[in-house]
Amino acid sequence: MERIIIDMDEVMSDTMGGMIEWYEKEHGLPIDYNRMLGTGWVKGFPEHHQEMIWNRLLAPGFFRDLPVMKDAVDVIRELNNRYEVFIVSAATEFPNSLKEKLEWLQDNFPFLTWKQVVLCGDKRLIHGDYMIDDHVKNLMHFKGKPYIFTTPHNLNVTEYERLNSWEDAAKIFLV
Amino acid sequence: MERIIIDMDEVMSDTMGGMIEWYEKEHGLPIDYNRMLGTGWVKGFPEHHQEMIWNRLLAPGFFRDLPVMKDAVDVIRELNNRYEVFIVSAATEFPNSLKEKLEWLQDNFPFLTWKQVVLCGDKRLIHGDYMIDDHVKNLMHFKGKPYIFTTPHNLNVTEYERLNSWEDAAKIFLV
Repeated sequence: MERIIIDMDEVMSDTMGGMIEWYEKEHGLPIDYNRMLGTGWVKGFPEHHQEMIWNRLLAPGFFRDLPVMKDAVDVIRELNNRYEVFIVSAATEFPNSLKEKLEWLQDNFPFLTWKQVVLCGDKRLIHGDYMIDDHVKNLMHFKGKPYIFTTPHNLNVTEYERLNSWEDAAKIFLV
Repeated sequence: MERIIIDMDEVMSDTMGGMIEWYEKEHGLPIDYNRMLGTGWVKGFPEHHQEMIWNRLLAPGFFRDLPVMKDAVDVIRELNNRYEVFIVSAATEFPNSLKEKLEWLQDNFPFLTWKQVVLCGDKRLIHGDYMIDDHVKNLMHFKGKPYIFTTPHNLNVTEYERLNSWEDAAKIFLV
Protein backbone atom coordinates (compact mmCIF):
# COMPACT_ATOMS: atom_id res chain seq x y z
CA MET A 1 0.00 0.00 0.00
CA GLU A 2 1.40 3.40 -0.90
CA ARG A 3 1.92 5.91 1.90
CA ILE A 4 0.53 9.46 1.84
CA ILE A 5 1.83 12.04 4.32
CA ILE A 6 -0.77 14.76 4.95
CA ASP A 7 -0.13 18.04 6.76
CA MET A 8 -2.72 19.53 9.15
CA ASP A 9 -2.55 23.34 9.33
CA GLU A 10 -3.70 25.01 6.10
CA VAL A 11 -4.31 21.59 4.54
CA MET A 12 -6.81 19.74 6.74
CA SER A 13 -7.64 22.65 9.04
CA ASP A 14 -8.25 26.27 8.13
CA THR A 15 -5.76 27.57 10.68
CA MET A 16 -5.29 30.96 9.03
CA GLY A 17 -9.06 31.34 8.73
CA GLY A 18 -9.47 30.57 12.43
CA MET A 19 -6.90 33.22 13.31
CA ILE A 20 -8.41 35.84 10.97
CA GLU A 21 -11.84 35.30 12.46
CA TRP A 22 -10.50 35.83 15.98
CA TYR A 23 -8.29 38.77 14.94
CA GLU A 24 -10.91 40.74 13.09
CA LYS A 25 -13.32 40.28 15.99
CA GLU A 26 -10.70 41.65 18.41
CA HIS A 27 -9.16 44.38 16.26
CA GLY A 28 -11.18 44.89 13.12
CA LEU A 29 -7.99 45.46 11.15
CA PRO A 30 -7.66 43.89 7.73
CA ILE A 31 -4.82 41.45 7.12
CA ASP A 32 -2.46 41.84 4.17
CA TYR A 33 -2.25 38.77 1.95
CA ASN A 34 0.70 40.14 -0.02
CA ARG A 35 2.92 40.18 3.04
CA MET A 36 2.43 36.43 3.43
CA LEU A 37 3.93 35.50 0.10
CA GLY A 38 6.93 33.25 0.39
CA THR A 39 6.98 33.29 4.18
CA GLY A 40 3.83 32.17 6.01
CA TRP A 41 0.39 33.41 6.90
CA VAL A 42 1.43 34.88 10.26
CA LYS A 43 3.31 37.61 8.37
CA GLY A 44 0.02 38.83 6.89
CA PHE A 45 -0.93 40.31 10.25
CA PRO A 46 0.34 43.81 11.06
CA GLU A 47 3.91 44.05 12.30
CA HIS A 48 2.90 45.48 15.68
CA HIS A 49 0.57 42.53 16.27
CA GLN A 50 3.01 39.74 15.38
CA GLU A 51 3.73 38.94 19.02
CA MET A 52 0.02 38.83 19.83
CA ILE A 53 -0.65 36.40 16.96
CA TRP A 54 2.22 34.27 18.15
CA ASN A 55 0.87 34.25 21.70
CA ARG A 56 -2.51 33.18 20.38
CA LEU A 57 -0.88 30.24 18.59
CA LEU A 58 0.80 29.24 21.84
CA ALA A 59 -2.31 29.67 24.02
CA PRO A 60 -4.52 26.74 25.01
CA GLY A 61 -7.61 26.42 22.85
CA PHE A 62 -6.58 27.90 19.54
CA PHE A 63 -6.09 24.64 17.63
CA ARG A 64 -9.01 22.80 19.24
CA ASP A 65 -11.91 24.17 17.20
CA LEU A 66 -10.45 25.23 13.86
CA PRO A 67 -12.69 24.92 10.81
CA VAL A 68 -12.15 21.88 8.60
CA MET A 69 -11.08 22.48 4.99
CA LYS A 70 -13.78 21.89 2.40
CA ASP A 71 -14.07 18.26 1.23
CA ALA A 72 -11.13 17.19 3.43
CA VAL A 73 -13.21 14.71 5.45
CA ASP A 74 -14.75 12.91 2.48
CA VAL A 75 -11.55 12.73 0.44
CA ILE A 76 -9.28 11.69 3.33
CA ARG A 77 -11.82 9.04 4.40
CA GLU A 78 -11.54 7.48 0.96
CA LEU A 79 -7.76 7.94 0.80
CA ASN A 80 -7.61 6.07 4.12
CA ASN A 81 -9.31 3.09 2.47
CA ARG A 82 -6.87 2.94 -0.42
CA TYR A 83 -3.56 4.20 0.99
CA GLU A 84 -1.54 4.12 4.16
CA VAL A 85 -2.37 7.59 5.47
CA PHE A 86 -0.23 9.44 8.03
CA ILE A 87 -1.07 12.88 9.37
CA VAL A 88 2.19 14.71 10.05
CA SER A 89 2.07 18.10 11.73
CA ALA A 90 5.01 20.30 12.71
CA ALA A 91 3.47 20.99 16.11
CA THR A 92 6.08 20.61 18.86
CA GLU A 93 6.73 24.37 18.66
CA PHE A 94 3.25 24.75 20.17
CA PRO A 95 3.07 22.45 23.21
CA ASN A 96 -0.57 23.29 23.94
CA SER A 97 -1.57 22.30 20.43
CA LEU A 98 -0.50 18.66 20.76
CA LYS A 99 -3.43 17.16 22.64
CA GLU A 100 -5.81 19.59 20.92
CA LYS A 101 -4.70 18.39 17.50
CA LEU A 102 -5.35 14.77 18.49
CA GLU A 103 -8.81 15.69 19.82
CA TRP A 104 -9.58 17.76 16.72
CA LEU A 105 -8.70 14.80 14.52
CA GLN A 106 -10.80 12.46 16.62
CA ASP A 107 -13.79 14.81 16.34
CA ASN A 108 -13.53 15.57 12.64
CA PHE A 109 -11.74 12.52 11.20
CA PRO A 110 -12.91 9.71 13.51
CA PHE A 111 -11.82 7.06 10.99
CA LEU A 112 -8.16 7.93 11.68
CA THR A 113 -6.41 6.47 14.74
CA TRP A 114 -3.62 7.72 17.03
CA LYS A 115 -1.31 5.31 15.19
CA GLN A 116 -1.59 7.49 12.09
CA VAL A 117 -0.59 10.75 13.76
CA VAL A 118 2.90 12.27 13.94
CA LEU A 119 3.51 15.52 15.82
CA CYS A 120 7.02 16.73 15.19
CA GLY A 121 9.31 19.70 14.75
CA ASP A 122 11.04 18.81 11.51
CA LYS A 123 9.66 16.65 8.70
CA ARG A 124 13.01 15.71 7.19
CA LEU A 125 13.00 12.29 8.84
CA ILE A 126 9.51 11.40 7.55
CA HIS A 127 9.42 9.04 4.59
CA GLY A 128 6.55 8.12 2.32
CA ASP A 129 5.41 7.94 -1.28
CA TYR A 130 3.44 11.21 -1.43
CA MET A 131 3.39 14.35 0.70
CA ILE A 132 0.65 17.00 0.71
CA ASP A 133 1.82 20.15 2.50
CA ASP A 134 1.56 23.93 2.20
CA HIS A 135 5.22 24.64 3.07
CA VAL A 136 8.19 24.44 0.72
CA LYS A 137 10.46 23.80 3.74
CA ASN A 138 8.63 20.50 4.31
CA LEU A 139 8.31 19.46 0.67
CA MET A 140 11.90 20.22 -0.34
CA HIS A 141 13.47 17.38 1.68
CA PHE A 142 10.82 14.78 0.86
CA LYS A 143 12.07 11.70 -1.01
CA GLY A 144 8.68 10.77 -2.53
CA LYS A 145 6.40 12.85 -4.75
CA PRO A 146 5.54 16.24 -3.21
CA TYR A 147 2.33 18.22 -3.76
CA ILE A 148 1.86 21.79 -2.58
CA PHE A 149 -1.59 22.51 -1.16
CA THR A 150 -2.65 25.98 -2.18
CA THR A 151 -3.00 28.66 0.50
CA PRO A 152 -2.40 32.43 0.21
CA HIS A 153 1.19 32.35 1.50
CA ASN A 154 2.40 29.90 -1.18
CA LEU A 155 0.72 31.37 -4.28
CA ASN A 156 4.09 32.40 -5.73
CA VAL A 157 5.62 28.92 -5.47
CA THR A 158 6.07 27.33 -8.90
CA GLU A 159 8.34 24.32 -8.38
CA TYR A 160 5.75 21.82 -7.09
CA GLU A 161 2.65 20.20 -8.52
CA ARG A 162 -0.27 22.03 -6.97
CA LEU A 163 -3.48 20.89 -5.30
CA ASN A 164 -5.92 23.79 -5.16
CA SER A 165 -8.48 21.81 -3.18
CA TRP A 166 -9.30 18.37 -1.83
CA GLU A 167 -11.36 17.88 -4.96
CA ASP A 168 -8.08 18.22 -6.88
CA ALA A 169 -6.52 15.59 -4.61
CA ALA A 170 -9.42 13.22 -5.31
CA LYS A 171 -8.83 13.63 -9.05
CA ILE A 172 -5.20 12.54 -8.64
CA PHE A 173 -5.34 9.90 -5.91
CA LEU A 174 -8.83 8.44 -6.22
CA VAL A 175 -9.21 7.84 -9.93
CA MET B 1 26.03 14.40 9.79
CA GLU B 2 24.64 10.98 10.63
CA ARG B 3 21.19 10.82 12.19
CA ILE B 4 20.45 8.95 15.45
CA ILE B 5 16.84 8.22 16.41
CA ILE B 6 16.48 7.85 20.20
CA ASP B 7 13.41 6.50 21.99
CA MET B 8 12.19 8.05 25.26
CA ASP B 9 10.41 5.52 27.50
CA GLU B 10 12.79 2.89 28.94
CA VAL B 11 15.69 4.47 27.06
CA MET B 12 15.94 8.11 28.18
CA SER B 13 13.37 7.90 30.97
CA ASP B 14 12.88 5.15 33.54
CA THR B 15 9.17 4.83 32.79
CA MET B 16 8.81 1.35 34.27
CA GLY B 17 10.70 2.46 37.38
CA GLY B 18 8.36 5.42 37.77
CA MET B 19 5.34 3.13 37.54
CA ILE B 20 6.79 0.55 39.96
CA GLU B 21 7.50 3.26 42.53
CA TRP B 22 3.90 4.51 42.32
CA TYR B 23 2.44 1.00 42.27
CA GLU B 24 4.33 -0.39 45.24
CA LYS B 25 3.43 2.69 47.27
CA GLU B 26 -0.27 2.19 46.41
CA HIS B 27 -0.48 -1.60 46.57
CA GLY B 28 2.72 -3.05 47.99
CA LEU B 29 2.45 -5.97 45.57
CA PRO B 30 5.61 -7.17 43.82
CA ILE B 31 5.73 -7.08 40.05
CA ASP B 32 6.71 -10.13 38.01
CA TYR B 33 9.59 -9.50 35.61
CA ASN B 34 9.13 -12.86 33.88
CA ARG B 35 5.69 -11.91 32.65
CA MET B 36 7.16 -8.94 30.78
CA LEU B 37 9.40 -10.98 28.55
CA GLY B 38 8.68 -10.53 24.88
CA THR B 39 5.70 -8.24 25.45
CA GLY B 40 6.28 -5.07 27.48
CA TRP B 41 6.74 -3.95 31.05
CA VAL B 42 3.01 -3.28 31.66
CA LYS B 43 2.44 -7.07 31.60
CA GLY B 44 4.65 -7.45 34.65
CA PHE B 45 1.91 -5.96 36.82
CA PRO B 46 -0.78 -8.36 38.10
CA GLU B 47 -3.55 -9.22 35.66
CA HIS B 48 -6.29 -7.69 37.85
CA HIS B 49 -4.39 -4.39 37.93
CA GLN B 50 -3.72 -4.06 34.19
CA GLU B 51 -6.54 -1.58 33.70
CA MET B 52 -5.34 0.51 36.63
CA ILE B 53 -1.80 0.65 35.25
CA TRP B 54 -3.23 1.65 31.88
CA ASN B 55 -5.31 4.40 33.45
CA ARG B 56 -2.23 5.69 35.22
CA LEU B 57 -0.41 5.90 31.88
CA LEU B 58 -3.32 7.88 30.45
CA ALA B 59 -3.69 10.21 33.45
CA PRO B 60 -2.18 13.70 33.53
CA GLY B 61 1.11 13.88 35.39
CA PHE B 62 2.57 10.40 34.99
CA PHE B 63 5.14 11.22 32.33
CA ARG B 64 6.07 14.64 33.71
CA ASP B 65 8.48 13.66 36.48
CA LEU B 66 9.93 10.30 35.48
CA PRO B 67 13.49 9.54 36.55
CA VAL B 68 16.19 10.00 33.92
CA MET B 69 18.22 6.93 32.91
CA LYS B 70 21.76 6.85 34.26
CA ASP B 71 24.31 8.69 32.06
CA ALA B 72 21.63 9.55 29.47
CA VAL B 73 22.10 13.31 29.86
CA ASP B 74 25.87 13.33 29.49
CA VAL B 75 25.99 10.87 26.60
CA ILE B 76 23.10 12.43 24.64
CA ARG B 77 24.58 15.92 25.14
CA GLU B 78 27.75 14.72 23.46
CA LEU B 79 25.86 12.76 20.78
CA ASN B 80 24.00 15.99 20.03
CA ASN B 81 27.32 17.68 19.25
CA ARG B 82 28.45 15.01 16.84
CA TYR B 83 25.25 13.64 15.25
CA GLU B 84 21.84 14.83 14.12
CA VAL B 85 19.79 13.63 17.10
CA PHE B 86 16.04 13.09 16.98
CA ILE B 87 13.97 11.96 19.95
CA VAL B 88 11.13 9.80 18.64
CA SER B 89 8.49 8.60 21.08
CA ALA B 90 5.39 6.52 20.32
CA ALA B 91 3.22 8.78 22.46
CA THR B 92 0.01 9.65 20.63
CA GLU B 93 -1.71 6.74 22.39
CA PHE B 94 -1.35 8.85 25.56
CA PRO B 95 -2.65 12.34 24.75
CA ASN B 96 -1.83 13.72 28.19
CA SER B 97 1.78 12.64 27.82
CA LEU B 98 2.51 14.84 24.80
CA LYS B 99 3.09 18.22 26.42
CA GLU B 100 4.56 16.52 29.50
CA LYS B 101 7.17 14.76 27.39
CA LEU B 102 8.21 18.06 25.82
CA GLU B 103 8.46 19.68 29.25
CA TRP B 104 10.38 16.71 30.66
CA LEU B 105 12.88 16.97 27.82
CA GLN B 106 13.23 20.71 28.32
CA ASP B 107 13.92 20.19 32.04
CA ASN B 108 16.34 17.30 31.75
CA PHE B 109 17.84 17.73 28.27
CA PRO B 110 17.80 21.52 27.79
CA PHE B 111 20.30 21.30 24.93
CA LEU B 112 17.65 19.62 22.74
CA THR B 113 15.04 21.77 20.97
CA TRP B 114 11.42 21.18 19.92
CA LYS B 115 12.72 20.72 16.37
CA GLN B 116 14.36 17.46 17.45
CA VAL B 117 11.23 15.89 18.94
CA VAL B 118 8.78 13.54 17.19
CA LEU B 119 5.69 12.27 19.01
CA CYS B 120 4.00 9.60 16.94
CA GLY B 121 2.00 6.40 16.92
CA ASP B 122 4.05 4.29 14.56
CA LYS B 123 7.79 4.58 13.88
CA ARG B 124 7.71 2.90 10.47
CA LEU B 125 7.86 6.22 8.63
CA ILE B 126 10.90 7.46 10.57
CA HIS B 127 14.21 7.25 8.75
CA GLY B 128 17.74 7.67 10.05
CA ASP B 129 21.15 6.04 10.26
CA TYR B 130 20.85 4.58 13.78
CA MET B 131 17.93 3.78 16.07
CA ILE B 132 18.15 3.15 19.82
CA ASP B 133 14.90 1.65 21.13
CA ASP B 134 13.70 -0.97 23.61
CA HIS B 135 10.98 -2.42 21.35
CA VAL B 136 11.45 -4.95 18.56
CA LYS B 137 8.29 -3.60 16.88
CA ASN B 138 10.09 -0.27 16.35
CA LEU B 139 13.48 -1.69 15.40
CA MET B 140 12.22 -4.29 12.94
CA HIS B 141 11.07 -1.80 10.29
CA PHE B 142 14.04 0.53 10.62
CA LYS B 143 16.17 0.93 7.48
CA GLY B 144 19.34 2.03 9.29
CA LYS B 145 21.32 0.20 11.98
CA PRO B 146 19.15 -0.77 14.97
CA TYR B 147 20.31 -1.11 18.59
CA ILE B 148 18.14 -2.59 21.32
CA PHE B 149 18.40 -0.79 24.65
CA THR B 150 18.27 -3.31 27.46
CA THR B 151 15.25 -3.30 29.77
CA PRO B 152 13.64 -6.27 31.57
CA HIS B 153 10.94 -6.90 28.95
CA ASN B 154 13.45 -7.40 26.10
CA LEU B 155 16.05 -9.60 27.84
CA ASN B 156 15.12 -12.58 25.64
CA VAL B 157 15.62 -10.72 22.35
CA THR B 158 18.70 -11.94 20.51
CA GLU B 159 18.46 -10.52 16.99
CA TYR B 160 19.74 -6.98 17.63
CA GLU B 161 22.99 -5.52 18.84
CA ARG B 162 22.45 -4.58 22.46
CA LEU B 163 23.18 -1.46 24.48
CA ASN B 164 23.05 -2.31 28.18
CA SER B 165 23.57 1.30 29.25
CA TRP B 166 24.34 4.76 27.97
CA GLU B 167 27.95 4.01 28.78
CA ASP B 168 27.72 1.24 26.17
CA ALA B 169 26.30 3.77 23.70
CA ALA B 170 29.21 6.12 24.35
CA LYS B 171 31.66 3.31 23.59
CA ILE B 172 30.03 2.80 20.19
CA PHE B 173 29.08 6.31 19.10
CA LEU B 174 31.60 8.54 20.84
CA VAL B 175 34.91 6.81 20.19
